[in-house]
Amino acid sequence: MLIVMKADATESESRGVVRVIQDLGYRAHPMPGATRTAIGITGNQVVLDTTHFENLPGVAEAIRVSKPYKLISLDMRPEKTIVQVGNATIGGDELAIIAGPCAIESREQAFAVAEAVARSGARLFRGGAFKPRTSPYAFQGLGEEGLKILSEVREIYDLNIVTEALDEYGVDLIERYGDMIQIGARNMQNFSLLRRAGRSHLPVLLKRGLSATLDEWLLAAEYIMIEGNYQVVLCERGVRTFAQHTRNTLDLAAVPAVRQVSHLPVVIDPSHGTGKNYMVTPLALAGVAVGADGLIIEVHNQPERALSDGAQSLTLEQYNQLVYEVKSIHRVIAPLSDVFSPALAYQI
Amino acid sequence: MLIVMKADATESESRGVVRVIQDLGYRAHPMPGATRTAIGITGNQVVLDTTHFENLPGVAEAIRVSKPYKLISLDMRPEKTIVQVGNATIGGDELAIIAGPCAIESREQAFAVAEAVARSGARLFRGGAFKPRTSPYAFQGLGEEGLKILSEVREIYDLNIVTEALDEYGVDLIERYGDMIQIGARNMQNFSLLRRAGRSHLPVLLKRGLSATLDEWLLAAEYIMIEGNYQVVLCERGVRTFAQHTRNTLDLAAVPAVRQVSHLPVVIDPSHGTGKNYMVTPLALAGVAVGADGLIIEVHNQPERALSDGAQSLTLEQYNQLVYEVKSIHRVIAPLSDVFSPALAYQI
Amino acid sequence: MLIVMKADATESESRGVVRVIQDLGYRAHPMPGATRTAIGITGNQVVLDTTHFENLPGVAEAIRVSKPYKLISLDMRPEKTIVQVGNATIGGDELAIIAGPCAIESREQAFAVAEAVARSGARLFRGGAFKPRTSPYAFQGLGEEGLKILSEVREIYDLNIVTEALDEYGVDLIERYGDMIQIGARNMQNFSLLRRAGRSHLPVLLKRGLSATLDEWLLAAEYIMIEGNYQVVLCERGVRTFAQHTRNTLDLAAVPAVRQVSHLPVVIDPSHGTGKNYMVTPLALAGVAVGADGLIIEVHNQPERALSDGAQSLTLEQYNQLVYEVKSIHRVIAPLSDVFSPALAYQI
Amino acid sequence: MLIVMKADATESESRGVVRVIQDLGYRAHPMPGATRTAIGITGNQVVLDTTHFENLPGVAEAIRVSKPYKLISLDMRPEKTIVQVGNATIGGDELAIIAGPCAIESREQAFAVAEAVARSGARLFRGGAFKPRTSPYAFQGLGEEGLKILSEVREIYDLNIVTEALDEYGVDLIERYGDMIQIGARNMQNFSLLRRAGRSHLPVLLKRGLSATLDEWLLAAEYIMIEGNYQVVLCERGVRTFAQHTRNTLDLAAVPAVRQVSHLPVVIDPSHGTGKNYMVTPLALAGVAVGADGLIIEVHNQPERALSDGAQSLTLEQYNQLVYEVKSIHRVIAPLSDVFSPALAYQI
Repeated sequence: MLIVMKADATESESRGVVRVIQDLGYRAHPMPGATRTAIGITGNQVVLDTTHFENLPGVAEAIRVSKPYKLISLDMRPEKTIVQVGNATIGGDELAIIAGPCAIESREQAFAVAEAVARSGARLFRGGAFKPRTSPYAFQGLGEEGLKILSEVREIYDLNIVTEALDEYGVDLIERYGDMIQIGARNMQNFSLLRRAGRSHLPVLLKRGLSATLDEWLLAAEYIMIEGNYQVVLCERGVRTFAQHTRNTLDLAAVPAVRQVSHLPVVIDPSHGTGKNYMVTPLALAGVAVGADGLIIEVHNQPERALSDGAQSLTLEQYNQLVYEVKSIHRVIAPLSDVFSPALAYQI
Repeated sequence: MLIVMKADATESESRGVVRVIQDLGYRAHPMPGATRTAIGITGNQVVLDTTHFENLPGVAEAIRVSKPYKLISLDMRPEKTIVQVGNATIGGDELAIIAGPCAIESREQAFAVAEAVARSGARLFRGGAFKPRTSPYAFQGLGEEGLKILSEVREIYDLNIVTEALDEYGVDLIERYGDMIQIGARNMQNFSLLRRAGRSHLPVLLKRGLSATLDEWLLAAEYIMIEGNYQVVLCERGVRTFAQHTRNTLDLAAVPAVRQVSHLPVVIDPSHGTGKNYMVTPLALAGVAVGADGLIIEVHNQPERALSDGAQSLTLEQYNQLVYEVKSIHRVIAPLSDVFSPALAYQI
Repeated sequence: MLIVMKADATESESRGVVRVIQDLGYRAHPMPGATRTAIGITGNQVVLDTTHFENLPGVAEAIRVSKPYKLISLDMRPEKTIVQVGNATIGGDELAIIAGPCAIESREQAFAVAEAVARSGARLFRGGAFKPRTSPYAFQGLGEEGLKILSEVREIYDLNIVTEALDEYGVDLIERYGDMIQIGARNMQNFSLLRRAGRSHLPVLLKRGLSATLDEWLLAAEYIMIEGNYQVVLCERGVRTFAQHTRNTLDLAAVPAVRQVSHLPVVIDPSHGTGKNYMVTPLALAGVAVGADGLIIEVHNQPERALSDGAQSLTLEQYNQLVYEVKSIHRVIAPLSDVFSPALAYQI
Repeated sequence: MLIVMKADATESESRGVVRVIQDLGYRAHPMPGATRTAIGITGNQVVLDTTHFENLPGVAEAIRVSKPYKLISLDMRPEKTIVQVGNATIGGDELAIIAGPCAIESREQAFAVAEAVARSGARLFRGGAFKPRTSPYAFQGLGEEGLKILSEVREIYDLNIVTEALDEYGVDLIERYGDMIQIGARNMQNFSLLRRAGRSHLPVLLKRGLSATLDEWLLAAEYIMIEGNYQVVLCERGVRTFAQHTRNTLDLAAVPAVRQVSHLPVVIDPSHGTGKNYMVTPLALAGVAVGADGLIIEVHNQPERALSDGAQSLTLEQYNQLVYEVKSIHRVIAPLSDVFSPALAYQI
């Protein structure tokens, strides 16, 4: 941490700050400048709170220098984590495609979509049984009934099931019926849920919150990992901004930003990230080109009758075209990043 | 809902949309214009999903017209709700002041602050026992131990206890030890928690999410009320924007905006809303002037040693000065709004 | 500036950074920590660009420590500037009210509004002759004709004229017809215009840009002042965020934030800041309570026929009520800030 | 436009609105619903201001339905515009690469970079002679001297020159020395400058404003085109959001969004869009994959000594690698969009 003194801070105020630092058991490094003095702090094992210093007499600002996370970092594990989801993986050489309807609505709907997903070569099936809806008057999902349908999909189509838990009870159920626990954007800082997922044997797909900074997102993963579950996949699904031409603003720079500090895989959700059918494929292509480990895509056999998020769902035909296109891009991208690891390629 | 057709949509595409509307059992109102046709929909009892229409051939856009909430609305209850919290109220003629430390750290700290709060004439005491912290390595609160201290504060100082529940178990505990359940910004769309609070006999303080629209916030209240608990107080605590001179951007326009549609009381949190000690009082004054029903303020006997949020906590002395100042403003504002109810005063 | 090295940076990389710093003629202060080294820089007279350091081998981050502005700062001038506008002032003991229509539409309209403004006791009249409109198809203002009407208003009603310049030619004209040059939000970083205003003998009202940080806004003022014109008033008029219940999000915390670093007066624009008639008065009250030096308010004799911004204009009657209410608040606030200057009151 | 009445609006209030609509010469289409009445308006040739209606008695909301632009729209010109820039084009089959330093600093620097740019096969050279800098104390560019160097670059390396005009005088100079006028993000709504560029014979590169909505950006292009200059290229360069891991948030969904309504070409600026050297190439790849017509890239022979924006500039080596990679992606993307025009591919 760096303490910046005010221009008119007195010597005795600076000495006061130094004393507080030393009382806490750390080392103080005063640096008198032309117009103001700054005081560095070293020797702390824990992350300091800027709080302790900002209101001391003479202090203008306290600036945090070291990063607050550990387990997610490349310092901890320099090579990328490959997450095992049932008999599929995310984070390896292959592009992971997670596809399926927003919500499970019926056995017929689930099977119709699952067949197309399996035929496309994708290994992971998504579908919500418990839906987090803004309005209590909107369709809330089929609940456990939906999970049972999902587990039939697994049997019949040999797909691995990714589905959302809204609470700890939801995690219990997914452990029975599914293969991967999705934590939704609205629950990214539901710390009780994160801790429960951290005690599961299943891998976790952690969506970025609607207005989460990179640090908050990575620290949410840290909450899961600190409980012992290291099988975490991050999912960028768009953030909330002033822009109104999309439902959310897909922040693709999150992919290289995560790569720079973390070993965890990242997937892109262009369906929620745009909220518009006609934008899903272009943004999926962009997601693969920027280096994501996978995609999560909403597909519906009859989008115009979908009980939720129909406007952003692809038809089966559009989905097949998407798979064809993203694989074409991935074939070009994969060897590039083989030779040039992002950590090396973009530095002087 | 209003369906806007593309400029080059054919007549038969418009007829197709009309047919879909009629098949759903609603009335279609086509309005051919100079450059494009719009089609109104009436007769629906439920909120329609724009989804069902946006991808139909020839459709440019589907625009939602009616508001999706019911129980929170002035249509439902035209006069303001007065919420009872223990032996205090929020939403009545008096300005409600909820004050206390961010986190309960010890009996000594809690008592020192509580004494000052009680002496200031405030009736509500805040203090976290379970803290939602961005980092798993930060102080997480004393847990049930903290709640026990809070219930002692209630006994000794005759203050009513407002404290945060992070999960359903937290609600159970607050029902035993406290007077009002706070739902934090990060949990505003934790629907399981909202429903649980909706089944409590205690009133609920619902903080606005970091990037929640007005509708999302009101619908979160609707989730609580639909379970039968109508004792909900809304709390504006700042939203996340690009601005970096404050921790959050306090959106005081939320107060008249809520007033315009809802009977629920609204309080302002200038502590989290600014994150800076020196801004708390000016923004508290602004909150009272804009017409809020109350304030929630962080106070600490030793802010520089606070285990969380010290930078935004007031000292006891600053807090006393704040109470004096906000009461001066409230004395001017109260009679104004007596004569001119916001619903009447600002319309032609 | 503070250079933070990566956790795995080598000693020789740190020495490399030190050498670069010394080559530039500055002093380097290395602070080896438990996990990483930081290197402070002092001795620079100019603001350093983080650029020079961020891509050096081993560097994780470069953090700017000193503030980039001079003339606007309290270091430069510790007491508040009082700006003279014709025969009125902004920044003194009195609350400055600038009122008038969004655009000058006709002599009749301007006179009808001016009469009410003068009668209310306000000393400053606003009205646009050149309007910056998002669409080229919207009403663009009466141009020089409008300025002539404004100068008649000045003669007849003894009001001082505040009006917007869109370009350097506009400044020439205002110098002939008006009393204060308004620089609009969209032009806050039109540096040629800022420099031209800096060479004017007229005071300048500088609106904050739609997404301007505090530093960018203050530096825009610095652009004016560096040319020799120290008569600058800052105007907070709302920023662009995700929130849709208002046209902009009024950031009232900007007032104490400016006070903390600058001697320039600040006024609040609740008309553009909310975009809604029924919110103007509550937010004007909040603006006065938070400590602003004045208000700028849109008033129209027939808002429903206004050629621009009618939805946010007050009727003459509403305006009179607003003046009555804000003065009531100001009478309470003024003595408080007399005793407790913000710089003193909110610090330990 | 659609007028939504309040739930408790009386019949006579609805009739009042209908009368106002008819008085303006338009047709009113009342649609009584279960809970409230909506009234459609057709027959207007000009874009209506919601203003005229929002404060009428009984009105809850006025919703704009038709889009406000004309010349930029596909309705006007269904095939994509190919913009001629000197002897190069933007918007055709080839990917346009505009590369060069942020600012022209010296003949040596400009020539060193230009040689690499020409050798890479790019046809367009960028470089600022007049720099819009947040601080008046930062390097402001070489001015006309810089433009002379640029015109030498054109002669020697047969590159076409893209450079920014900060004001009308800047346009005069570029008409003498350059090939394309760049309007920067800060000037996107500098309407005097837009109009001047609209009267130029040179094509215009129009950067999106820091917080510009899609409509505002397109209407800024409309300001240029209405003066007769149809040679406009749009440039997405990132928008300002809460996210801090990048300098701006690159909004790649802007590309399909523009495609959906406009015939103008779009290029991506991953340098300003991210502000970080290591992110430029991944986001450039994503920009090509999403369907952009070109890229604008900052390159410097010695980024660590750049006088502006060094942190985001590529080295010559990195730039060569980028060109190789983006061309690989473009070879895959181009035939896809040949067969599937975005307007067709992503609709049902």
